[in-house]
Amino acid sequence: MIKITLPDGTLKEFSKGSTPMDVAKSISEGFARNVISAKFNDTTVETTTPLNENGSLVLYTWNDTEGKQAFWHSSSHIVAQAIEELYPGVKLTIGPSIENGFYYDVDLGDDRSISDKDFPKIEKKAIEIARGKHDFKMRSVTKKEALALYKEQGNEYKTELIENLEDGTITFCDHDTFTDLCRGGHIPNTGIVKAIKILSVAGAYWRGDENKTQLTRIYGISFPKQKELTEYLELLEQAKQRDHRKLGKELELFTFSQKVGAGLPLWLPKGAALRERLENFLKKAQKKAGYEMVVTPHIGQKELYVTSGHYAKYGEDSFQPIKTPKMDEEFLLKPMNCPHHCEVFNFKPHSYKDLPKRFAEFGTVYRYEQSGELHGLTRVRGFTQDDAHIFCTPDQLDQEFKNVIDLSLYVLNSLGFNNFKAQVSVRDLDNPDKYIGSVENWEKAENAIINAAKEKGLDYVIESGEAAFYGPKLDFMVKDALGRNWQLGTIQVDYNLPERFDLTYKGSDNEDHRPVMIHRAPFGSMERFIALLLEHTGGNFPLWLIPDQAIVLPVSEKYEKYAKKVLNSLENDEIRALLDNRNETVGKKIREAEMNKIPFMIIIGENEEATNTISVRKHGGEDLGSISIKDFSDLVTSEINSTLKSF
Amino acid sequence: MIKITLPDGTLKEFSKGSTPMDVAKSISEGFARNVISAKFNDTTVETTTPLNENGSLVLYTWNDTEGKQAFWHSSSHIVAQAIEELYPGVKLTIGPSIENGFYYDVDLGDDRSISDKDFPKIEKKAIEIARGKHDFKMRSVTKKEALALYKEQGNEYKTELIENLEDGTITFCDHDTFTDLCRGGHIPNTGIVKAIKILSVAGAYWRGDENKTQLTRIYGISFPKQKELTEYLELLEQAKQRDHRKLGKELELFTFSQKVGAGLPLWLPKGAALRERLENFLKKAQKKAGYEMVVTPHIGQKELYVTSGHYAKYGEDSFQPIKTPKMDEEFLLKPMNCPHHCEVFNFKPHSYKDLPKRFAEFGTVYRYEQSGELHGLTRVRGFTQDDAHIFCTPDQLDQEFKNVIDLSLYVLNSLGFNNFKAQVSVRDLDNPDKYIGSVENWEKAENAIINAAKEKGLDYVIESGEAAFYGPKLDFMVKDALGRNWQLGTIQVDYNLPERFDLTYKGSDNEDHRPVMIHRAPFGSMERFIALLLEHTGGNFPLWLIPDQAIVLPVSEKYEKYAKKVLNSLENDEIRALLDNRNETVGKKIREAEMNKIPFMIIIGENEEATNTISVRKHGGEDLGSISIKDFSDLVTSEINSTLKSF
Repeated sequence: MIKITLPDGTLKEFSKGSTPMDVAKSISEGFARNVISAKFNDTTVETTTPLNENGSLVLYTWNDTEGKQAFWHSSSHIVAQAIEELYPGVKLTIGPSIENGFYYDVDLGDDRSISDKDFPKIEKKAIEIARGKHDFKMRSVTKKEALALYKEQGNEYKTELIENLEDGTITFCDHDTFTDLCRGGHIPNTGIVKAIKILSVAGAYWRGDENKTQLTRIYGISFPKQKELTEYLELLEQAKQRDHRKLGKELELFTFSQKVGAGLPLWLPKGAALRERLENFLKKAQKKAGYEMVVTPHIGQKELYVTSGHYAKYGEDSFQPIKTPKMDEEFLLKPMNCPHHCEVFNFKPHSYKDLPKRFAEFGTVYRYEQSGELHGLTRVRGFTQDDAHIFCTPDQLDQEFKNVIDLSLYVLNSLGFNNFKAQVSVRDLDNPDKYIGSVENWEKAENAIINAAKEKGLDYVIESGEAAFYGPKLDFMVKDALGRNWQLGTIQVDYNLPERFDLTYKGSDNEDHRPVMIHRAPFGSMERFIALLLEHTGGNFPLWLIPDQAIVLPVSEKYEKYAKKVLNSLENDEIRALLDNRNETVGKKIREAEMNKIPFMIIIGENEEATNTISVRKHGGEDLGSISIKDFSDLVTSEINSTLKSF
Repeated sequence: MIKITLPDGTLKEFSKGSTPMDVAKSISEGFARNVISAKFNDTTVETTTPLNENGSLVLYTWNDTEGKQAFWHSSSHIVAQAIEELYPGVKLTIGPSIENGFYYDVDLGDDRSISDKDFPKIEKKAIEIARGKHDFKMRSVTKKEALALYKEQGNEYKTELIENLEDGTITFCDHDTFTDLCRGGHIPNTGIVKAIKILSVAGAYWRGDENKTQLTRIYGISFPKQKELTEYLELLEQAKQRDHRKLGKELELFTFSQKVGAGLPLWLPKGAALRERLENFLKKAQKKAGYEMVVTPHIGQKELYVTSGHYAKYGEDSFQPIKTPKMDEEFLLKPMNCPHHCEVFNFKPHSYKDLPKRFAEFGTVYRYEQSGELHGLTRVRGFTQDDAHIFCTPDQLDQEFKNVIDLSLYVLNSLGFNNFKAQVSVRDLDNPDKYIGSVENWEKAENAIINAAKEKGLDYVIESGEAAFYGPKLDFMVKDALGRNWQLGTIQVDYNLPERFDLTYKGSDNEDHRPVMIHRAPFGSMERFIALLLEHTGGNFPLWLIPDQAIVLPVSEKYEKYAKKVLNSLENDEIRALLDNRNETVGKKIREAEMNKIPFMIIIGENEEATNTISVRKHGGEDLGSISIKDFSDLVTSEINSTLKSF
């Protein structure tokens, strides 16, 4: 008999050679039907692998990340078989699962290629194979046997892979008539895969080396239900429609210029104004929360970043030092604002009575990224952090941390992010040498964070060993409207920089003490946050934030004068409104206003002018009928007040 | 007879050999008494120089810059004589006039020095000499004679100077027993100098070369009346008290950090907030004037500045290019915002109906300055321009220029600068090749500027040949409270960048046209402007701008509760107020509040609490007596409204 421990701590006995699926069935037949992969003693196994020793077992279903990975990895085998059957003589190389789906890199030879026109036939063939309900079966082979198979096929790629493996560790996976070199981690059989979609093809060098053969990479995804595939494809289409790069251009929020340089956004008037509204929104809350704004330069002497440790971290891989004529000076573009804020703190001596000091700055920082890694506003070379650094006594940490959580929650809620979890990153207690600062302070800080998370009712997880060497932190993991996760609003405790910059305050004991620092940025960066907000809202920003709140659409030029009067009234009521007085039909004007995501369309014609009213149509089509300008202003104000509470 | 033309166009005949003083006397004896120097046919002459040909003559008095220069140059001769008499064997080198006064560089030998203790005896000796009413007399000498004199004296400096002069051009100037190598430009006699002050001594290398002998530089100033010297010394003392570096530190507005680097200001909370108020003030006016804010990065590819021409202008002498790891990319810190704004304009095609576009940005730029040239906030390495670029059709230039003048005047008036002139810089018509752009456009632009200056009732002068090669401009020359002149609020027309960036708009003729650009910055830079404002106001900023508008001073801790209530009320009325609840006497609290330039001191004691009032004392001592909080708020509001009109 062997003893198997399950994740909930249950210990069960099984006869030696029992499989994970046997364990699953012992729990319930219903559960077992959903189990598709397993991990035994931290090693991925098949659901059919005999277990011969005591150990802990985790069983995965489609709902687990690990389950999905096994599902997609298995699907890549099925697609590989389909390709082998459709393209005889094709040479297979590798086919891993990825975050969403899988790919397989194949060598089709010089005279064949795969295009999107070929996807349906590959999908058809693959799903036929899947429906055969073939079991995935692992078997060990000797290096000699393995090499023999692929040499016979003339597949130099698999041969190269096998040559790098140790004899005795080599396994093949068989299903149906297909065999592949494989380490394992499959679902029980092909029949579980009910829907397969080939998504795209791309070129990829063998082993990522541009001096080697260019292969064809086939991307796909698969699901246990057809409905899930349909939903996924809808999501993909939505994500494409909501791509912030597309919307940013259409709504004229920002642009990039080849001459200025890749990854360096230029904020156009509507985008700059939106950004300023966001900044003002946070500034107002920060002022109430006792922050003080500072302004610091975008460069600093290299020595500053040597002191802070940033040069060691960013120096080589980032923008290189800026030299000066004649004199022996070197400056760096600032990768972070913290060293500057430490120097602001240091400008005069402090007493414990002055603390906490909370210095905030919308500070633009520059970090080099390879041009291939740049992506719209989410991966840039220059971005503005809504940065702040709190310098407090260790005793104040608890309250300050709670205050920062309040501010972060206020920001998330005000902007329509209601679905999030918190992650608390603490020390690895087994490796105390990895961390600086006293154990006492670490305990204080970790407890402060955990208590704050509890007290604020956050849904949080604790991750051991995920803390930085200089202090524990809390992150918000935010789910957007498309169900994607984003990390936002890190709150980081820091014992390191106060040490490096020799920051002190005079305590009530008249001795010098080190303050603790908190780094925090509820938005993270203005660029990334606005990108996220664009994709989350599809450009339908909250009313208080959206560039144009209303557009006045006269049905003909006869009503232009009244339209201008209306526009004027709206502007006096601080409503951001446009006038579309082009000689176009109202239908066309409405369609364009819809495309431009303008929340309110104000239609002006004979009746409106006669009755001194306006006809209001909401974005999306809802008709609010004829109302007075004042009622409309009140409506806008109350809609804003309902989403934008004050801090 | 010779014909002499005077500056007002008068033509007069004089016998050959008449002197400028003869001409002066022919105008009036009273005028002649004030004439102290002259220029004939654009060459400086003595008032005693015989005129032997026709030409134009300008006569100068102490009220002219040229008159002051002759006065101070002559004074340097007098002081040199005094030093020669007090320090026998001293070697004289050069002694020019400067913007305010003069200096003389002397070699005292190894074992002598001059300190501030010696100033009175030098002044006494110099004024004794002056009182002798010795005429300044120029005479020509041969190179041989000149060398003989100084070789005899063993003066290698004068010898070196003479050796570099051409024989036949060498002149000496004599007065009393003193002779100096000199090109001329003196006042008639020493007696006109009634007051002489030695201001300081400093080290200075011979010919500014640090490998050569270090000389002693003696700075002095002189005046035709003792009263003027007294006033000047008072001004100097005031300027010292108002030095923005001193006030900036005392009022905690900004600081510098050795680690961050020289010339890179860190704005402390009070300074950053003041700066933001200034920015918001201008933003509000700009919004009304139809500007749109944009945000652009602080770096750009080197190529961008090669295109704009800034690399050719700033490249070598400024911060050097920023390289990147691996890839062959080069970036520059932006020395100006204009190239970025051109790229913003270029982000989509424009029609004449879209123009003018007015892009504004508080854009921080970086320009390298030698560390020795840095000075507080007025000479820095990074500064934020209140920049904007207007892109308009040539026909719109006239109106746009007038609008910019309106905005500039609004800024100057709102900030208490009421004493200024305008300077219009136009082409040198004799050198048409120096300028780019069509003659038609230049005429249009120059006329636009001159008409605008006229129409706006500006006190202006036209300076020919002072325009940049790319367009004419208008500057405001502002006199501060100490009578010093500052250049502020340049408005520059530009035909160059639209060409270099190939900016176009579709005209009503459906053809492509070049827009004209206007560069403008009413503040110039936030740093320099705030420095100027500090020195102009001595830290007593306008009420709407000053960091702390009021301070609540309870006479004892018994009244702290009521004091806090008052503070709260003031904050609700958006008055920036502090509470000084330290256990100190009210006398001390008032003294400190005075030093901190806080406009209103609110004293809280038994009587105030009992009657629910406050006692208000203004900065400087005026007692406003006991009033209600509401009356005080109204007072503050009305004082702000009286200085800060809306645009």
